[in-house]
Amino acid sequence: MRNPAVTSGDGAAPPSRASRTGTPGRVDGARLLDRIERFAAIGRGKDGGINRLGFSETDREARTCLAREARHAGLETVIDAGGNVLIRCPAGNGDRPSKPRVLIGSHLDTVANGGKLDGAYGVLAGLEVLETLNASATDTSCEVTVVAFANEEGALFPQPFWGSMVLAGRVDDLPSDPVDYSGKPLRDALALAGGDLSDLRSAAWPPGSLAAYLELHVEQGPVLERLGKPIGVVDSITGRTQFTVVIHGEPGHAGTTPMEGRRDPLITASHAIIAVQRLAREEELCRVATVGWLEVSPNSSNTIPETVRFSVDLRDSSAKRLAAAEATLSGALASVANRGDVRISVEGTIRTDPVQTDDRLREAIAASAKDLGLAYERLPSGAGHDAQVVANITSIGMIFVPSIGGVSHVPWENTAPDDLVAGADVLLQTVLRL
Amino acid sequence: MRNPAVTSGDGAAPPSRASRTGTPGRVDGARLLDRIERFAAIGRGKDGGINRLGFSETDREARTCLAREARHAGLETVIDAGGNVLIRCPAGNGDRPSKPRVLIGSHLDTVANGGKLDGAYGVLAGLEVLETLNASATDTSCEVTVVAFANEEGALFPQPFWGSMVLAGRVDDLPSDPVDYSGKPLRDALALAGGDLSDLRSAAWPPGSLAAYLELHVEQGPVLERLGKPIGVVDSITGRTQFTVVIHGEPGHAGTTPMEGRRDPLITASHAIIAVQRLAREEELCRVATVGWLEVSPNSSNTIPETVRFSVDLRDSSAKRLAAAEATLSGALASVANRGDVRISVEGTIRTDPVQTDDRLREAIAASAKDLGLAYERLPSGAGHDAQVVANITSIGMIFVPSIGGVSHVPWENTAPDDLVAGADVLLQTVLRL
Repeated sequence: MRNPAVTSGDGAAPPSRASRTGTPGRVDGARLLDRIERFAAIGRGKDGGINRLGFSETDREARTCLAREARHAGLETVIDAGGNVLIRCPAGNGDRPSKPRVLIGSHLDTVANGGKLDGAYGVLAGLEVLETLNASATDTSCEVTVVAFANEEGALFPQPFWGSMVLAGRVDDLPSDPVDYSGKPLRDALALAGGDLSDLRSAAWPPGSLAAYLELHVEQGPVLERLGKPIGVVDSITGRTQFTVVIHGEPGHAGTTPMEGRRDPLITASHAIIAVQRLAREEELCRVATVGWLEVSPNSSNTIPETVRFSVDLRDSSAKRLAAAEATLSGALASVANRGDVRISVEGTIRTDPVQTDDRLREAIAASAKDLGLAYERLPSGAGHDAQVVANITSIGMIFVPSIGGVSHVPWENTAPDDLVAGADVLLQTVLRL
Repeated sequence: MRNPAVTSGDGAAPPSRASRTGTPGRVDGARLLDRIERFAAIGRGKDGGINRLGFSETDREARTCLAREARHAGLETVIDAGGNVLIRCPAGNGDRPSKPRVLIGSHLDTVANGGKLDGAYGVLAGLEVLETLNASATDTSCEVTVVAFANEEGALFPQPFWGSMVLAGRVDDLPSDPVDYSGKPLRDALALAGGDLSDLRSAAWPPGSLAAYLELHVEQGPVLERLGKPIGVVDSITGRTQFTVVIHGEPGHAGTTPMEGRRDPLITASHAIIAVQRLAREEELCRVATVGWLEVSPNSSNTIPETVRFSVDLRDSSAKRLAAAEATLSGALASVANRGDVRISVEGTIRTDPVQTDDRLREAIAASAKDLGLAYERLPSGAGHDAQVVANITSIGMIFVPSIGGVSHVPWENTAPDDLVAGADVLLQTVLRL
């Protein structure tokens, strides 16, 4: 599954990026890959899946490990009130750097049974870039800070983009006393991670304080692999509409309740789930539409369900198309509710507008790839990223590398080693170019 | 929602059965109703639903309470190795009664968030009958034993009809070391309830040792209420085919995996669930068909599901029709699997044949109802009951009383007080008639 454009595109078989160390203007590929593997061991389950749910014990272990690696690399680490881990070169300018500040990074937390690269790759490549710059005492025109945003996935505490929301000053958009799926307060988990729920505003970076944010990430989709190109220049981050559909029917004994007159919410949910995918697959009203989570109550084989809840996730790079898809689904839900004589409601709608990346940063990324002899493609991001939140306070740029098989959020999520190093090289060159 | 046939059928407004005490040949209605309410408090949740899952702490509490009530009534209690509670008049004849033995009862355990009558009514009415006979020193032609069968529902330990299987000598059909849904061994829970997993065979009653089994139960369906008749004479207990459908698809990121080429098992499950209900509702291949339990994995709103599992429950009073429905569904599952490019398998199929009640016992029940001036109807039981298992070793008879709204396995499961007392009177008269 190696990417042919990288291994044979230059004709004369260049030395593998993955084994290269100490080349000027390039990262230490072996060090980066070694670090990725060591972090992949933190929270790894029996079947190879990574479980580092945001603010869980394994997530804290990864954050502690990151701070230790930074210290060994001669860098400084601070943790802000939101629990974000920030890594810098040892302070020369104190709190008021004269140079513009550039933030690079991603997140360390994962979904349940996820992969080793989603998030962690961007953080560890950021660390690699800063370590390379620091070791070579390169005089950059900007001061680079590496960030590991807290709880991007929201897999345990359902507040995704937690850390980037705090850093971007969107504290008012967050619940005031969040809890996890079992009711445990985020306050305590955040304190264990070094944050402070009562002081979130201290972690906000005001607009103007930051020159740019760059995030390197695995594509998590099949585009780059299909094109055989190692670098993606992200032009936009997808918009997303999420909500929970709740269907209330009438429970009853599975053996004694005649079919006639049953008000079974699971039958209605089945019709609704088919309608959700139809939005994207047949009606092409939005790019993708997914039901990934579903809960039946009381969930007993001998009882007709009383209530069914399921998540709906619609994505598109156009806010208009998303709104149209949502409206169409709304009509379809009303129709199936009517047919099944059940009551449907929609809860917790979150609409995230698509975000465009910055022209200047896109050009810098593309020029860096070109200089390094790496083929690149402009493409949208189908997944959400911390970058879209940081876009509230500064220009953002995103670099993608190919995902083998186009998959992510699974234990076998992977990227060819040369592509991982190529991405970090492009990140380094882009920083140098700013 | 009172049953008009009971309250006004005689024209001259008879005294309410529910408030009647000490009439010869009749149970003490007030005592029975009071006992039902006191047992309803054991395991009752916030919304009124009863949680006495078999072998749980609340189930043990109900069993202990039953033994105490029996002792206060001057009766003897033993617990067999299977955990069944058996209540008898104080031993006169030792272990070898010269009279034929008649067993009456039901079970005390409930489904999750169930009602107060399913099972408990039959046990407490049995106790009421025995207490009435014992107090009046009535010379019956048979020796009556009351039974509270252990774990009829199988809501915690998924071995429904546990106690009746043991009593009927079907130990070889039970798993040798059963566990509950969380993996906890039944061995320990059974020991706490006074049973002994290593000695189950000691609890078996050999064929011929029992003259008859009578079970009084709420109908759990709408037939008697619709007809306005207080007594049902059960002619058969429904056959049932149960299995779990497992659908394996391909997981992926909900935002980055294009619709084209997705292999989403939840879409296939939705089509399959619609096909299950169609079996009964449109194709009329079996009486009822239900999906009550469903589990999605990994069940995350941001991940296309990898696996979906759901229960299928088909019921009919004809084994032939059940087999035809199962075969038709099998074809439908293959077709939807093919369309969704997913893999479907079926696990843990249990086929329970329909069981006929005994002619002589049906006649005795009908004659008793007639003598008591109670309208009755012959009907099949749509639910499974311990009686169908006890049918392995003796003749069975079943008496139904109406369920208000035709519902059961829900917190608001109920029956008019007069109907509850009428059912117990019919049980008493039937015992006297044997």
